Amino acid sequence: MQQRRSVLSVFTLTLAVVLGAALLTNLGRTAAEPASDAEFTGSGRVVIRDAAMVLTMDSKLGEGPLGALADADVVMEGNKIKEVGKDLDARGARVVDARGKIVLPGFVDMHNHLWQSLIRGCAADKELVGWLGKCVIPLYGAPVTDADAYAGTKLSAADVVSTGITTVTDWSHAFNIDFAKGGLRALAESKLRFVYSYNGTTNAALQDEIRRVKREVIDPNPLAHLQVGTHPSTGNFPSLEASEKLARELGVSLNVHLLESKADLTEGQMDALRRANALHSGLVANHVIQTTDADLDELARAGVSVAHNPLSNMRLASGVIRLPEMKKRGMKVGLGLDGGTNDTSDMFNVMRAAVGLQRATTTDPAVYPATADVLRMATLGGAEALGLDREIGSLTPGKKADLQVIDAQSVNFAPKVDWVNQLVFNTQPANVSWVFVDGRALKRDGRVAGIDTAKVVADAQLAADHLKKLLPQ
Amino acid sequence: MQQRRSVLSVFTLTLAVVLGAALLTNLGRTAAEPASDAEFTGSGRVVIRDAAMVLTMDSKLGEGPLGALADADVVMEGNKIKEVGKDLDARGARVVDARGKIVLPGFVDMHNHLWQSLIRGCAADKELVGWLGKCVIPLYGAPVTDADAYAGTKLSAADVVSTGITTVTDWSHAFNIDFAKGGLRALAESKLRFVYSYNGTTNAALQDEIRRVKREVIDPNPLAHLQVGTHPSTGNFPSLEASEKLARELGVSLNVHLLESKADLTEGQMDALRRANALHSGLVANHVIQTTDADLDELARAGVSVAHNPLSNMRLASGVIRLPEMKKRGMKVGLGLDGGTNDTSDMFNVMRAAVGLQRATTTDPAVYPATADVLRMATLGGAEALGLDREIGSLTPGKKADLQVIDAQSVNFAPKVDWVNQLVFNTQPANVSWVFVDGRALKRDGRVAGIDTAKVVADAQLAADHLKKLLPQ
Repeated sequence: MQQRRSVLSVFTLTLAVVLGAALLTNLGRTAAEPASDAEFTGSGRVVIRDAAMVLTMDSKLGEGPLGALADADVVMEGNKIKEVGKDLDARGARVVDARGKIVLPGFVDMHNHLWQSLIRGCAADKELVGWLGKCVIPLYGAPVTDADAYAGTKLSAADVVSTGITTVTDWSHAFNIDFAKGGLRALAESKLRFVYSYNGTTNAALQDEIRRVKREVIDPNPLAHLQVGTHPSTGNFPSLEASEKLARELGVSLNVHLLESKADLTEGQMDALRRANALHSGLVANHVIQTTDADLDELARAGVSVAHNPLSNMRLASGVIRLPEMKKRGMKVGLGLDGGTNDTSDMFNVMRAAVGLQRATTTDPAVYPATADVLRMATLGGAEALGLDREIGSLTPGKKADLQVIDAQSVNFAPKVDWVNQLVFNTQPANVSWVFVDGRALKRDGRVAGIDTAKVVADAQLAADHLKKLLPQ
Repeated sequence: MQQRRSVLSVFTLTLAVVLGAALLTNLGRTAAEPASDAEFTGSGRVVIRDAAMVLTMDSKLGEGPLGALADADVVMEGNKIKEVGKDLDARGARVVDARGKIVLPGFVDMHNHLWQSLIRGCAADKELVGWLGKCVIPLYGAPVTDADAYAGTKLSAADVVSTGITTVTDWSHAFNIDFAKGGLRALAESKLRFVYSYNGTTNAALQDEIRRVKREVIDPNPLAHLQVGTHPSTGNFPSLEASEKLARELGVSLNVHLLESKADLTEGQMDALRRANALHSGLVANHVIQTTDADLDELARAGVSVAHNPLSNMRLASGVIRLPEMKKRGMKVGLGLDGGTNDTSDMFNVMRAAVGLQRATTTDPAVYPATADVLRMATLGGAEALGLDREIGSLTPGKKADLQVIDAQSVNFAPKVDWVNQLVFNTQPANVSWVFVDGRALKRDGRVAGIDTAKVVADAQLAADHLKKLLPQ
C-alpha cells in the first residue's frame, strides 16, 4: 500500500508538472498568437506586431534620420525583411507581440575578441602593453586548444546575443590552427552573423589554411564573412605585407589595431601601412585614438573605416578618440565591445560611453555624437564601416532579418519620455526581449535561446583555468 | 458526459498547475533549505551559506583592503549582521544558497533625485543649466502633486534595489509640501534605507514642515535619515543661510550641488558657503568638478564629503572630477547615480565610469581609483561620506544587515578569473540575485520583491505625462 501510494504520487506529480508547465507556458495567450517558444528558425513568415516604435535606420521608411515609425509592424519572410509599416497584412505569420516595445536593427559589433571572455578581469590595472604581456602574448606558442577557443567563443556568443548584437566581428589571435577551428565552430553554431578576422602571417602553410577556411568554412555559410587580421608596425612589416596581399587575393578586408595607445606611436604604424599599400577603402582600423590631424586626413582620404571601443579605451587608459574630427572628415565609424578589455557585453553602455566621453572631456553637450548618432553608429554605421550595409544595418525591405525588440516597460526604462535618448541612457541588456538574426530568434522573451547556460559556463571555467596556467601570475 | 469530462478536466488541470508549481518551486532543494520565496522580513535568523567570495569591506574580517573571505557564510539576526566566517553554526536559520555567488555590502547611493525617473531622457542634448531649464525649473510653482512624486519615487526605488543599492540619498526638489509627502511615503514603503534631503528655504511655514517631517516621519522610522538640501550661491544666499541654520538646529547635514558645471563658477559658491558658515564636516557636496587646488584644500580642511556621479557628469558634459587630487587630500568620496541626469540605475556602470573617466583622460592605468577603490567607494566610502559608517557600509558584525548577493555564473560574468575586477568591469544589475536591507529581502532570486511592476510603471507613465504638460516642449 505504501509503495502503491508512492507510485501513484510520483505519477500524479509527474503529470502535474508536465500539465502545469504546459498550461503556465500558454497562460495569457490567445489562439491567434502562437506561444513564444514556437520555433522561429528563419523559415516562413513572422510579424513583429504593434511595436510602439520602430527605428528603421532608413530615413525613407520613417521620420527623421533614424526613420522612426510609431505603432508599426515589421514583417519578416524567411531570412529577410519583407515589409515595415502600419497594420500590415500578415496572414499566416507567426506573431511576436511588440505592444509597448521598440524595434530596431540588431547591433553591429565592429570589434571583438570572442575567446577573451576566458580572461575577463585579467590585469585590469594595466594599459595596453602591460595587459597584453600579462593576458595575451604568452599564449602565442602555448598549447591553447580548439576546446579553449570553442568554450570562450560559446560564452561570448551567448553574451553578445543578450545585448542585441546580431553581427559580431571576431578579431581572433588564432594562436594556432586548432584554436581558430574551435572559435569558428562556436561562431557557426551561434547562428550569429559574423566576420572572422583570421590573423595573417608570412607562413605559407598558415596562409593555405586561411584560404581553406575561406573556401570550406566561410563561403558555404551565408552568415559568415572573412577578414585578414594583422598588426601594422615596422617590426611586423613582413607579416603586414603578406596579410595585405592575402586579403587582396581573397577579396576581403584587412583588419588592424591602429594608434590605440601612446605605445603605438613608436611603432611606425602609418608608415608601415603606407608601405604595404594597405591604406585604402576596406581597411578596418580599430581604436585610432592617438592621431594627428594629418593622420586623420590621410585615413579619411583613403576611406579607412574605424571601430570605436570606448569601454575598452577607458579600461586600458588608451585615451579619447577624436570622433568630432572624424565626423568632419566624413569617416565611417562603428562601435565595438572589444571583449577582454571591456569586459562587459553591454552595447547600451558602449553607446552611453561614446557620448559621455566626448562630453565630459569637452564640456560641450552639443559635441558629436548625439544619442541619435550613436544609435546609427551601433547599427547602420557599423554595417557601412564593414562594407555590409547592402545586407544589414537597417530594416529596409530586402535586407536580412537582423533585428532586436526592446522592452520599454521595465523599471529601469519606463516611462516613455524620449525613447531615442532612453535607448542610449537607460537601456540594459536585460531589456532586450527578442533578437533575430537572418530571421531566426536567438533571444526569445528575454532568454538566449538554445543555450545550456550551465554547461557553457562550466566549459568556459575549465578553459579559463587552462589559460590561467599558461599565463604569468 | 461532455460537461462532466470538462469539469474533471478543469479539476485535473487546476491540480496539475498547483502541484506542478509547488514542485517546480522546490526542485533541487533539500529539506534543510527553505524555498526562496519564504518570508525574509528582517526577523529571526538568516544565513547566506557557502558564498564563493565575501567582500566584507572590513580588513579585520578578511584579506586585503576589502576584507575578502573565500567559501564563507554570513549570518544575519533580525536586522543586523551577526557573524561572518566559515562553516558558521546557523541552526534554525533560513538559508540563502550562495554557492558560486559573491556577497558584499549593499551599495550606498550618495546622490539621487528619485522623482526624476519621470523625466528620463528629457533634454539629453543639454548641459546642466539648459537641462534644468527644460526639465526641472518650470516645475517650481507648477501644480505637481503628491501622486506625481509618489509614482516617480516608487519606480526609482524598485530600480535602485535592482542594482544592489541598499541606502539611497534622495535630494528632493520638494516643489511643494505635498510633493515631498508623496516622495517620503514611497520611500517608506520601499523599505530601503534612505536619506531624504529636504530642500530648505527662508519660508517659516516650510521650515516648520521640515521640523514636523523630521519629528513625525523620519525619527520614528529606523531606516530614515534627514538632510537639508539647498543651493549655495550669491543669489540664493538667504536661503542657503537659513538652510544651514535649520540643519544645525536639527542636527543633520546640509546637502548641496557644488562646482558641478562651468556655469557654477559664476555663482560665488565657495564664498557663499564660507559666509554661511557651512564649510564644515558633515556638509555633503555633490559633483565638485570645476575646482581649483585652493578649493580642494579648503574643502579637505573643512572635512566636506563629496558625491561623485560620473554618468551624470558625462551626460551633462559637466567635466571630469579630480579624484586623485581628492584622494591625496584624504577627502571622503562616495558614488551616486544622480537619477534624471544619468539616467540608468546601474551602480556597476557608475563604478566602471569612475575608473574609466580618470584613465581615459590621463592615459595612466594606475591613476586613482582602481577597481578595489571604487568597490570601497560604492559601499563603505559612501557610508563614511554620509556619516553612516557606524551602522552600514561593511559586513562587520553588529552593523545593519544591508547586503547583496551577486550571481557570478551568468554568461556576462563567468568564468572566475579576478572577481574584484569582474565586479567592476563585468557586472550588470540583472546579476544581483538578492538584496537585503535591515535583514529584509528586497530582491529575491533576481526579482524585486513586493512590487506590482505593471502598476508601478503605469502610474509612473501617468505622472510623467502630467509633468510633460507642465514643461516647455
